[in-house]
Amino acid sequence: MLAGSAARGTWLAGDHDLDIFLALPEGSDLGLGLEVARLVSPHYEERYAEHAYVHARIDDFDVDLVPCYLLQEATALKSAVDRTPFHTRYVASKINGLEEEVLLLKQFMKGTEVYGSELKTGGFSGYLAELLILRYRSFVSTLRGASSWRPGAIIDLEGHCARPHQEPLVVVDPVDPKRNVAAALTLDKMLQFSAASRCFLRDPDLAYFFPPEHRPISDEMLERQIRDRGSCMILVDFQAPPVVEDVLFPQLRKAEESARSLLEKNGFRLLRSDVGSSDGRAYLLFELEVWELPRVHGRLGPPAWEEEHLSRFVAAHPEALSGPYIANGRAAVEVPRKYTSARDLLAGELGNLSLGKHLTASVRQGYSIYVGQELARKSDLEFRIFLAGYLTARLRIC
Amino acid sequence: MLAGSAARGTWLAGDHDLDIFLALPEGSDLGLGLEVARLVSPHYEERYAEHAYVHARIDDFDVDLVPCYLLQEATALKSAVDRTPFHTRYVASKINGLEEEVLLLKQFMKGTEVYGSELKTGGFSGYLAELLILRYRSFVSTLRGASSWRPGAIIDLEGHCARPHQEPLVVVDPVDPKRNVAAALTLDKMLQFSAASRCFLRDPDLAYFFPPEHRPISDEMLERQIRDRGSCMILVDFQAPPVVEDVLFPQLRKAEESARSLLEKNGFRLLRSDVGSSDGRAYLLFELEVWELPRVHGRLGPPAWEEEHLSRFVAAHPEALSGPYIANGRAAVEVPRKYTSARDLLAGELGNLSLGKHLTASVRQGYSIYVGQELARKSDLEFRIFLAGYLTARLRIC
Repeated sequence: MLAGSAARGTWLAGDHDLDIFLALPEGSDLGLGLEVARLVSPHYEERYAEHAYVHARIDDFDVDLVPCYLLQEATALKSAVDRTPFHTRYVASKINGLEEEVLLLKQFMKGTEVYGSELKTGGFSGYLAELLILRYRSFVSTLRGASSWRPGAIIDLEGHCARPHQEPLVVVDPVDPKRNVAAALTLDKMLQFSAASRCFLRDPDLAYFFPPEHRPISDEMLERQIRDRGSCMILVDFQAPPVVEDVLFPQLRKAEESARSLLEKNGFRLLRSDVGSSDGRAYLLFELEVWELPRVHGRLGPPAWEEEHLSRFVAAHPEALSGPYIANGRAAVEVPRKYTSARDLLAGELGNLSLGKHLTASVRQGYSIYVGQELARKSDLEFRIFLAGYLTARLRIC
Repeated sequence: MLAGSAARGTWLAGDHDLDIFLALPEGSDLGLGLEVARLVSPHYEERYAEHAYVHARIDDFDVDLVPCYLLQEATALKSAVDRTPFHTRYVASKINGLEEEVLLLKQFMKGTEVYGSELKTGGFSGYLAELLILRYRSFVSTLRGASSWRPGAIIDLEGHCARPHQEPLVVVDPVDPKRNVAAALTLDKMLQFSAASRCFLRDPDLAYFFPPEHRPISDEMLERQIRDRGSCMILVDFQAPPVVEDVLFPQLRKAEESARSLLEKNGFRLLRSDVGSSDGRAYLLFELEVWELPRVHGRLGPPAWEEEHLSRFVAAHPEALSGPYIANGRAAVEVPRKYTSARDLLAGELGNLSLGKHLTASVRQGYSIYVGQELARKSDLEFRIFLAGYLTARLRIC
């Protein structure tokens, strides 16, 4: 069964992805499907999502050959891939005549960088775009509808009363009412789409669909930006673990959070941060507003009337530069700080953070830290595009 | 009427203050009392608290000659000075045999820097010390009692049910139940006395009564301390307005708070601060943990779904270095910062702060800012003692 946008007539020009599902009778061995898939092309590799599938390169197309079960009811499904044929059938039966609206919407989402439901992007899936067109009936109406979305918005095409979801946008799956089709959409991507929709309706422009490409930042521009901003950029760079982006990026985000909280707990202050991966490397980028601190460091103790706590606190700081003294009812001392630079802190403590299984292994094998103008030593073009995007970070919102 | 500690046999050796009250019949003119006072000594000056009084220097004694009304009931009094004779009479009638306990307590309070109810100190008055001895019956018992004080402690000698007070320690005035004798005592001085009491009882030492004197910090030591701490000390120094300390210090504390909040609102971070006055000057001392910031500065805007606010926010920042973008549901931009150094901020904005009437006038006439090692240019000895105390700030607490 051909699935995905190709099956629904809603694929974008330039797309060369085909999803072909191999549906087996319930109860049979999915391994059989895999064996059939391997026969399709000699140029294949096996990949893993919830289950194994085959990825083959055929005539310039990226073809995913996915074994699944042939079910009567989507609600009885065993794994996520079993749901896809139901999606394809549902959309195919309703979309007739609205295909071009779907294409406009998808290209608009692509141009405004909210398209793609992979965990790296956290944006809108193709199926979600199709359901929005089925709900609002045209590209422009979808933009009008999205213009007034707020967190908590619900779209329920088939009038299944949705069970409560925590996600900012809930789009009840017509073929599986328990599921939120927008579960992977982040709050920020949802609002980015909503704000871009308002902007476009006010002042339509082809650039929403086809924005200028991000270009790698040059050495000169990077040097100037770093100087102009005056902040301190710190890049932690290590070998990317051999896992797909949907596994890698959640771990990178988690590592980003752990490192942010390490920096903040130690008195440094962040402006912004981001994560990325290219050229076999993965990286965490931190931009700091405060990256050096004096040796002296104020430490607050217990309320001064808690005799035992106070005694322990005072006894624990015989080396105080100042104090103990009492400030607003609490004991306080001023002691030497262990890490006075953010770079030293990261270098000294990164290995002790809980970073997720694959990242921990990668980081243990070694990492590099680039600070400020040292970033120019990393010339990988995709990294330079990532940096350019980070430094500009300018959305079309209004 | 001789009032104060001299009248109660509870003055400390070295004290050369005499309070003499000139009590006039109710309804008469206090000015008459003043005229009498002026006749006592040729070496007098007139001073002002709630009312005018005469200060005279007689045989090495500082004598305050204070006109007041002779009332039957302390509760009927017209001004604070009218209360003093009642205090004197109350204590004199009860303290018999406990005078030495009072003296021990007062000297202990002096040595631990909690004695003195002027607004500069915020500590214990002599009358308060006497009442504590009347309550606990000895010096050591007072220390034992104080050891377990917590904010909200109440002492009510005459069993007047006290009306509610907000202060951390409430000592109901036996001669005027509406009044809290400890109203001027700050939370920190209260707890400092309490913690020092515990320490002393654990390990008695004459040094609690007669601690080593604070010595002016030398140029070399100042230079070393500033280097060791690594922080940034900023002193704002101006001519002291011609007012008594009880007027000056509340204004200095208010100015300190205004400047602290100015610094913090602009992204700088304080470790500690203090205020002082000597040699005809008044000063605010700020010690900063963060005193320089990068040019780029993150500014958070409204929730991205608030269309009108968002539009205004985006339109208001055409000059953004980065952004607008959406972070955790809110619009954000990164813009150039107006003040990247704490010194420039203070120099540029101090005149715009609300500093209190007298300070505003002084500051308008001009002020100096000393940063870091520049502090050594101020050689006034009392200032050097103030600085030494600030840098050590080591209390005997446990």
